[in-house]
Amino acid sequence: MFKKPRGTRDFSSEEMQKRRYVEDTIRKTFQNFGYQEIQTPTFENLELFTMKSGEEIIEEIYSFEDKGGRKLALRPELTAPVIRFYVEKLQMEAKPLKLFYIGNCYRYDRPQKGRYREFTQAGCELIGTKTPEALAELIAMAYFMLKKTGLKNINLYIGDLTLLSTIFQKFNLSKKQQEYVRPLIDKEKWGELKDALSDFELNDNEIDDFIEIIQTSDLEKIRKKIQEENSAKKQLEKLIKIKRILVENFQITNSEIKMSIVRGLDYYTGTVFEIEAPVLGAEKQLCGGGTYQLIELFGGKETPTSGFAVGFDRTIVALEEEEKDFPTSKLDFFVIPVNNQVLDEATEIAQKLRFNNYSVDIDLKRRNMGKALKYADSKNAKKTIIVGPEELEKQSVTIKDMETGEQKMVKISKIIDKLKK
Amino acid sequence: MFKKPRGTRDFSSEEMQKRRYVEDTIRKTFQNFGYQEIQTPTFENLELFTMKSGEEIIEEIYSFEDKGGRKLALRPELTAPVIRFYVEKLQMEAKPLKLFYIGNCYRYDRPQKGRYREFTQAGCELIGTKTPEALAELIAMAYFMLKKTGLKNINLYIGDLTLLSTIFQKFNLSKKQQEYVRPLIDKEKWGELKDALSDFELNDNEIDDFIEIIQTSDLEKIRKKIQEENSAKKQLEKLIKIKRILVENFQITNSEIKMSIVRGLDYYTGTVFEIEAPVLGAEKQLCGGGTYQLIELFGGKETPTSGFAVGFDRTIVALEEEEKDFPTSKLDFFVIPVNNQVLDEATEIAQKLRFNNYSVDIDLKRRNMGKALKYADSKNAKKTIIVGPEELEKQSVTIKDMETGEQKMVKISKIIDKLKK
Repeated sequence: MFKKPRGTRDFSSEEMQKRRYVEDTIRKTFQNFGYQEIQTPTFENLELFTMKSGEEIIEEIYSFEDKGGRKLALRPELTAPVIRFYVEKLQMEAKPLKLFYIGNCYRYDRPQKGRYREFTQAGCELIGTKTPEALAELIAMAYFMLKKTGLKNINLYIGDLTLLSTIFQKFNLSKKQQEYVRPLIDKEKWGELKDALSDFELNDNEIDDFIEIIQTSDLEKIRKKIQEENSAKKQLEKLIKIKRILVENFQITNSEIKMSIVRGLDYYTGTVFEIEAPVLGAEKQLCGGGTYQLIELFGGKETPTSGFAVGFDRTIVALEEEEKDFPTSKLDFFVIPVNNQVLDEATEIAQKLRFNNYSVDIDLKRRNMGKALKYADSKNAKKTIIVGPEELEKQSVTIKDMETGEQKMVKISKIIDKLKK
Repeated sequence: MFKKPRGTRDFSSEEMQKRRYVEDTIRKTFQNFGYQEIQTPTFENLELFTMKSGEEIIEEIYSFEDKGGRKLALRPELTAPVIRFYVEKLQMEAKPLKLFYIGNCYRYDRPQKGRYREFTQAGCELIGTKTPEALAELIAMAYFMLKKTGLKNINLYIGDLTLLSTIFQKFNLSKKQQEYVRPLIDKEKWGELKDALSDFELNDNEIDDFIEIIQTSDLEKIRKKIQEENSAKKQLEKLIKIKRILVENFQITNSEIKMSIVRGLDYYTGTVFEIEAPVLGAEKQLCGGGTYQLIELFGGKETPTSGFAVGFDRTIVALEEEEKDFPTSKLDFFVIPVNNQVLDEATEIAQKLRFNNYSVDIDLKRRNMGKALKYADSKNAKKTIIVGPEELEKQSVTIKDMETGEQKMVKISKIIDKLKK
């Protein structure tokens, strides 16, 4: 027997219904905010990703040579391809350009709970503006998108990398030291962070001070720390404004300022944000984004950019953990011909209903009534239509409600009218 | 500047609107007929495809080794993965099982017009029945699906491989000779076919006879030719029945019997069909399918199977050639704050409309009225809402219809009510 490749998934129709529901919700929210859908290829030239993320990324992705010797890679994420597309074709479009996409990505790492080698990402890029209201709208959209899927409990955190590096500088951390502590801050490993700062020869007071400022959401404390730095002061004012717009204009009252948001990637600058679902425990991040610079690196004309990515698979797991009642598509009718002599009439009735946009199945195995009803039940049919010779003589069929068990005879010519009522 | 890989495509938002429209139409038609959506991984173990199609296929696909040395391949088609999934997980489901899928496939060949290295395929498998009404329903669904996308002119051809091989045997063609002539018949290369038959030492009468029977849609001629062969006779009766159901029960009157349908693949048996769009010229085939045997080869328990695949990209090209007026999504509202003092109110109005499911954008670049209106126009906005301090004093805004140019002042509290009317 053949098996699917390690770390990949097959989706049953039950799972696909959940996935299409979340996908539709996400797509509708993007369109609701004036974003337009685009799509890029599943694989790209490898150097697109090494240029963005360094040669190390080769270890974590599916890369291969095509028969022409070109080095290709299954995309590990969607921002690089979209910015490649933008630079290649979309630079002349009216700004801001609001682009969104939903697609599969690939990574070569050890499969573990909730992490797969093929996974789905939804995301967007806002190209051509960096006003506070633009950033606030982007963040609000991410928040509403996840709320609209039905998630009850999510937390929104907003930070700023300019502020964070000003804080690093205030404590005289070297570039190397900054690089070392960033993942510790990201993962909130406060013990290890303390040890590191101690190794960097900060004294106990400084260490406490550092940890406090990184952990605080008190803007006054941050303001005090960065007071003389002009660019940091500007960013702080922007952050305050974004938070105010989220609260006052978008009625999002549970966002929190958090200096410890570092984002994994080096190309982020300025405002950053994350949305978490506490129900997921350790792997709780559902969405991350912010402002970044990538266009110039890819050979385009510099313009402000921001965006975010939503972990599609984790969103579904979070909904499942919250016991979300996903909408399921039921079969409207299952048609049962009682014998082979009425097959034609049964087929015509089924087709008439389909033309009226009902979902309709019909017994295709010439089974007896008992078996056909059992099958109809297994397919979640709401109603069965029983087509028999005696009823047909009266131009009628029997309609059976599969939930209540109620049966009634209905004229064929009246079925459609009756259903419309 | 980075480029996309050779033979692949980026899709703009205009193209994505067409693609989503066709995708939705196809999905709804499958559901209309009681089919359920499933999904399999983008890559599979290479041997899944070599087992089905022979080692030659390696030349035509993207194959690669992962870091664990496993031989993988980007899927060139979807039937093998779906049958793999069926054998692995779905064999115990109630029959018939009606499965459909829409996904990207990959082939490594020379890029040319309408042929890409990444392309989209929609398809289905009907597992567990082979009654004539089941085949007729499958064929009717393929036909209606393409009609529903808006295609005006399509042709449906139905054939049977059992009949075709009986004809081959009647003319004493060896296995090797059959293999040689099949692609000639498929491509309707009648001249080359004649030469080949002559090489095989058929006389002129026999050659004319052969070509006539292959080209005919006259069932009486076919019946005469195969008269003593029992299994072929049964298949002919089935074919006649399928055609009758299509005409009488499904009102599909333009189908034609065609003995020259051979399908490319060896695993097809019995009934086969193809749908063409003449508007496409030489590459006119949109859909192909029929009954086939693959489950046993993949280690499952034998059960009748049939299915078809629709060329998604070609369907879109055919619609474009027929000058189909695709539905386009317009922006319902574009909100313009006349200065920075009314940004908050403008943001709140935009958000209120979004909560009522309108698609709404807002000027995020703090532009003057002229530039903002020009941008609204470029984004296809139906209406703009102009938010200014004087109007706000009267709790009002100005709504401008972008088509007629008509403007009117509306109370903010009344916008939603007004729109609902």
